[in-house]
Amino acid sequence: MKILIVGGEGTIGKRVSAHLAGKHKLIIAGRKSGDVQVDMADSDSILAMYKSIGPLDAVVCIAGEAKWAPFAELSEEDYYIGFRSKLMGQVNLVRLGKDYLQEGGSYTLTTGILADDPVVKTASAAMVNGAIHSFVKAASLELPKGHRLNVVSSGLVEDAVDKYEAYFPGHNPVPMSKVVNAYVKSILGKGTGEVIRIYE
Amino acid sequence: MKILIVGGEGTIGKRVSAHLAGKHKLIIAGRKSGDVQVDMADSDSILAMYKSIGPLDAVVCIAGEAKWAPFAELSEEDYYIGFRSKLMGQVNLVRLGKDYLQEGGSYTLTTGILADDPVVKTASAAMVNGAIHSFVKAASLELPKGHRLNVVSSGLVEDAVDKYEAYFPGHNPVPMSKVVNAYVKSILGKGTGEVIRIYE
Repeated sequence: MKILIVGGEGTIGKRVSAHLAGKHKLIIAGRKSGDVQVDMADSDSILAMYKSIGPLDAVVCIAGEAKWAPFAELSEEDYYIGFRSKLMGQVNLVRLGKDYLQEGGSYTLTTGILADDPVVKTASAAMVNGAIHSFVKAASLELPKGHRLNVVSSGLVEDAVDKYEAYFPGHNPVPMSKVVNAYVKSILGKGTGEVIRIYE
Repeated sequence: MKILIVGGEGTIGKRVSAHLAGKHKLIIAGRKSGDVQVDMADSDSILAMYKSIGPLDAVVCIAGEAKWAPFAELSEEDYYIGFRSKLMGQVNLVRLGKDYLQEGGSYTLTTGILADDPVVKTASAAMVNGAIHSFVKAASLELPKGHRLNVVSSGLVEDAVDKYEAYFPGHNPVPMSKVVNAYVKSILGKGTGEVIRIYE
């Protein structure tokens, strides 16, 4: 398979990439690194990326940002950071991918446990994740060419514990191998419209 | 109680208003009708509404729009219709309400079954609903003054069957009395951070 992994050098992305490398032809996309560069907040950049790499069998996105801040400090504009990047970035990957994804190909998006079990400072980040869950269920009903669409929603992953554990009191770290398997299930399985929750 | 009902003359809103009238002092807000006018897509309009009506014990929103269209026809800009109106309109009601809602007061927002069980043409509408579910869970963790925040997510309501049944094959109409009760539970109960699902 020829697989595009946007964010393939991030915390989760590098584990997914390492697992798939060798068995598949990977194209890693990143804002500044990787095989191709893409700005997830810019749909023109996403389209240019697709045009530059040609037909794909799977698209994986483990990228996009949203603002974390106390609810009282989040401005109206702060919410749009997440809308433009993590939310519409992933939506645009699906909207614009139809001509570049082969028959039966898959999209695998990424969210997180905040959608279901948020913590403080995540009014915007949780919202974006919940939006993507519902989007995946809805858009998967209408994709052409047998395209599949799933999302992996992970809890606090082991590799991010040092950085994020203070934000997630009492959350159990999720083994990276389980997270990687969720992506494998979406890419190599036959499911569509699934929110693959890996919370423990 | 002094209760603001944004969209109090809509399909669900007029049932909720009729139930609460007499027992409570209602202020009905609408785009063009009601006691006060408000444009849910404009945070300045929401703030002006709050300033004009003074302290409140409960805020109910049954308003806001999102674009319905086949996934292949939804433009990037189409998604922002829902972001500005139904999504950020309801978020802004909560963001801007803190100085106008009394101690222990409540916000009750509105979504719908599309968040969990979407139908075709609702990639944008479903997304907005799912976003609000996660927002309510997250923001409710951080509200001041004992403020509560819940959302009512209804299925295809009886009063909308004639208009919408073609879009919802096999969905069972939900009795209006159950929908009204969900709002009553949020306003007069003590719960917070709840997604009150009324799907049958």
